[in-house]
Amino acid sequence: MEAQREKIVDQVAIDAVIEILQADFGDRLSQAQAVRERFGKDESFHGSAPPDAVVTPHTTEEVSQIVKTCSDYQVPVIPFGTGTALEGHVAALHGGISINMQEMNQILEVHDEDLDVVVQPGVTRKQLNRHLHDRGLFFPIDPGADASIGGMAACRASGTNAVRYGTMRENVLALTVVLADGRVIKTSRRARKSAAGYDLTRLFVGSEGTLGVITEVTLRLYGIPEAIASAVCTFTDLDSAVSTVITTIQYGVPVARIELIDEVQIDAINKYSKTDLAIAPTLFLEFHGTDMGVEEQSKIVQGIAAESGGSNFEWTTNTEERNRLWQARHDAAYACKALVPNGEIWATDVCVPISQLAECIRETQADIRESKLIAPIVGHVGDGNFHLVLLVDKDNAEEVQRAHALHERMVMRALAMGGTCTGEHGIGYGKLDFLIAEHGEAVNVMRSIKQALDPNNIMNPGKVLRV
Amino acid sequence: MEAQREKIVDQVAIDAVIEILQADFGDRLSQAQAVRERFGKDESFHGSAPPDAVVTPHTTEEVSQIVKTCSDYQVPVIPFGTGTALEGHVAALHGGISINMQEMNQILEVHDEDLDVVVQPGVTRKQLNRHLHDRGLFFPIDPGADASIGGMAACRASGTNAVRYGTMRENVLALTVVLADGRVIKTSRRARKSAAGYDLTRLFVGSEGTLGVITEVTLRLYGIPEAIASAVCTFTDLDSAVSTVITTIQYGVPVARIELIDEVQIDAINKYSKTDLAIAPTLFLEFHGTDMGVEEQSKIVQGIAAESGGSNFEWTTNTEERNRLWQARHDAAYACKALVPNGEIWATDVCVPISQLAECIRETQADIRESKLIAPIVGHVGDGNFHLVLLVDKDNAEEVQRAHALHERMVMRALAMGGTCTGEHGIGYGKLDFLIAEHGEAVNVMRSIKQALDPNNIMNPGKVLRV
Repeated sequence: MEAQREKIVDQVAIDAVIEILQADFGDRLSQAQAVRERFGKDESFHGSAPPDAVVTPHTTEEVSQIVKTCSDYQVPVIPFGTGTALEGHVAALHGGISINMQEMNQILEVHDEDLDVVVQPGVTRKQLNRHLHDRGLFFPIDPGADASIGGMAACRASGTNAVRYGTMRENVLALTVVLADGRVIKTSRRARKSAAGYDLTRLFVGSEGTLGVITEVTLRLYGIPEAIASAVCTFTDLDSAVSTVITTIQYGVPVARIELIDEVQIDAINKYSKTDLAIAPTLFLEFHGTDMGVEEQSKIVQGIAAESGGSNFEWTTNTEERNRLWQARHDAAYACKALVPNGEIWATDVCVPISQLAECIRETQADIRESKLIAPIVGHVGDGNFHLVLLVDKDNAEEVQRAHALHERMVMRALAMGGTCTGEHGIGYGKLDFLIAEHGEAVNVMRSIKQALDPNNIMNPGKVLRV
Repeated sequence: MEAQREKIVDQVAIDAVIEILQADFGDRLSQAQAVRERFGKDESFHGSAPPDAVVTPHTTEEVSQIVKTCSDYQVPVIPFGTGTALEGHVAALHGGISINMQEMNQILEVHDEDLDVVVQPGVTRKQLNRHLHDRGLFFPIDPGADASIGGMAACRASGTNAVRYGTMRENVLALTVVLADGRVIKTSRRARKSAAGYDLTRLFVGSEGTLGVITEVTLRLYGIPEAIASAVCTFTDLDSAVSTVITTIQYGVPVARIELIDEVQIDAINKYSKTDLAIAPTLFLEFHGTDMGVEEQSKIVQGIAAESGGSNFEWTTNTEERNRLWQARHDAAYACKALVPNGEIWATDVCVPISQLAECIRETQADIRESKLIAPIVGHVGDGNFHLVLLVDKDNAEEVQRAHALHERMVMRALAMGGTCTGEHGIGYGKLDFLIAEHGEAVNVMRSIKQALDPNNIMNPGKVLRV
């Protein structure tokens, strides 16, 4: 699917902005075709929509200066983290200036006693965790990719640990944001909680660059647990696996990760990661706590799983084995890519109340079979969130059409079950219609807020809302 | 302090609205002086500002009808839960119609498997927990008062369990809201997480009725833990108590409650609740988990406390003893009231990064002594949040003045330490200036949002923002 660049922006204005920014940023501004192509594309199946130029700031003040200049000429601004989004979030649909945040990658302050950290937005999650490791601290949010913290905040990222630690929504304490007119605000303080005014932090978390550019992030941290144990358990059918998850959570076991991988995905993982997992619906689990605590948790879940017919429950506290297991899980998307000649995948996700999860996945699997498509499923099932990875030949228009229809049916199925059209990938420009299907009149409230904060629609235009 | 009713509203308009609503609601509309006085006053030291009438709807549609009528005539609308707020949140500063939500008190749906519940806003937290008890579920957020869920959502309420379970910010999944023009929206679905669009749920949580009226709330629930243990521990000084808290949290002990009570408050509790607690800085703790888990947690904390010089560490899993302890904690405000002849208290709170907590409380205690005031301190110290209860004779203007000066210094101290002017009480009309001191330019962003959603400023005008 090629992004259609809609020329609503005056080329004279763009040229004027580039001239000004070139004078200010020198070789930190690029108009090279290859650079523009790269910054107009994320990891999704959506095509590239290159910006007119890419500029690389180092400070909040410089970001403000860029946005102010773009604002003066009403030229679009697209913030770029690592380009690992999945719904075309960074595509310059209307041209404009891509702000490359990757050189704003300093960890500014670590507050051990307060369990928080202040970082620039270009810091990646792995970089952060390497930095924190020797202090006995970690940051739990882990989308598959080594995304930037700024991008993760902007997209309300989540991942395998969300069932225990929450998502970026729960773990961002404060943001520094450059607004559409260049003003700089801080959305909150470092205090753990506050009842002081509207929750601007949560408003910008998940706004996908459409309300402002995030230039500093304060995050909650956690102590690295004394003990970490992992477990794998296979099931004869999906319902048994999901009912194990439901009972585990109802029981109050503070499971850190509980991931469902369907048989198609297990097969792909075995091939890619050279594992020999039984080809059946499988739960990957992780427990955090004291030595005694993780053993107790693991035993409780083993008992629950056994009652649901789970078998081969294997658990380990061995770091190497654990890492191999979770690397295999995180490589799921790459394992899918390896299944198809051109390596192109179309990843999407929905999230439903957990009571609806087994039915939603079962119906979706049946639909996949009927649609004669290959689409492995993995899920952060503790949250009711699952991913479909559609393996589609982009050059086969008929197949793409079938995939679109399947995708739409899956989203509508999730909505009908009280779910959401995306648990963690976001709207970008790939799910604009689904946002409307999900939220109805509330989309007009979002639009009112967008218009109030970005009246000229220069902040990542065409994402979240068509405006 | 008497609330000044500013007559910006046309009496003709108010009379017209009352006439229409009277026709629609009959004796569910009251203009009686006593009723109006009661609905214009919360539990704070702020004076009453009676609305012109109080109307009692039963459905979202009726709320929409009321707001629509008020909108047509640009008459203020003030939602009223239980009137237990602490910053004048329900005062009809500009007159208008108070919407009494107390008869919208149905628990609509309990989803055991999904651990969520849908309630009308007039349901109180104790009513909800009574309803849930037999299902083995509970809702943890517990401000001292038996507040309504709608009011708690509107004010981003918190309480003793927040260190483990979060605040209303983390525990509201979705809201139905009547907007300023009478439109009805649903902010989200029941899914545990979503990356679909702006986080309207969090925008309305904590907006104190200034952006809309909450008419339905979906909440997260939790399984009642297998075991609950409580503990009390006294310290020779404040720093030792706070350092015990910091180490406990860094260690990752999932403590459910960790409350600090200073010696002045302990004395008041002993007198009021007939307890014989040692008069010293004291921690009240609670642990939730398995039998083995709570014992392990308790032993870890006992060890940490002992290293900081804590003594008399006593723990119990006996329900009666636990309840007595926590009743004493929840009665802290009433214990303060009993210390003064007229029973009037001025409760306020701030929240700071926990590393700053001991210093902030110590300086505040010194300031209280120098100001020759009596002001017990209790704190949800796991979050860095503490309360000051000023015992002030309202008729003594000089004393009130001294209290104001002390209060202002405390808030400014908290802000200087990276804290917030209120951890859980909110802004109401009592902390308007402090909101500005805390947020600066971000207040203008809040104002832009307010103007976008409530252009005629009819929703609880004069609260959060002066506009």
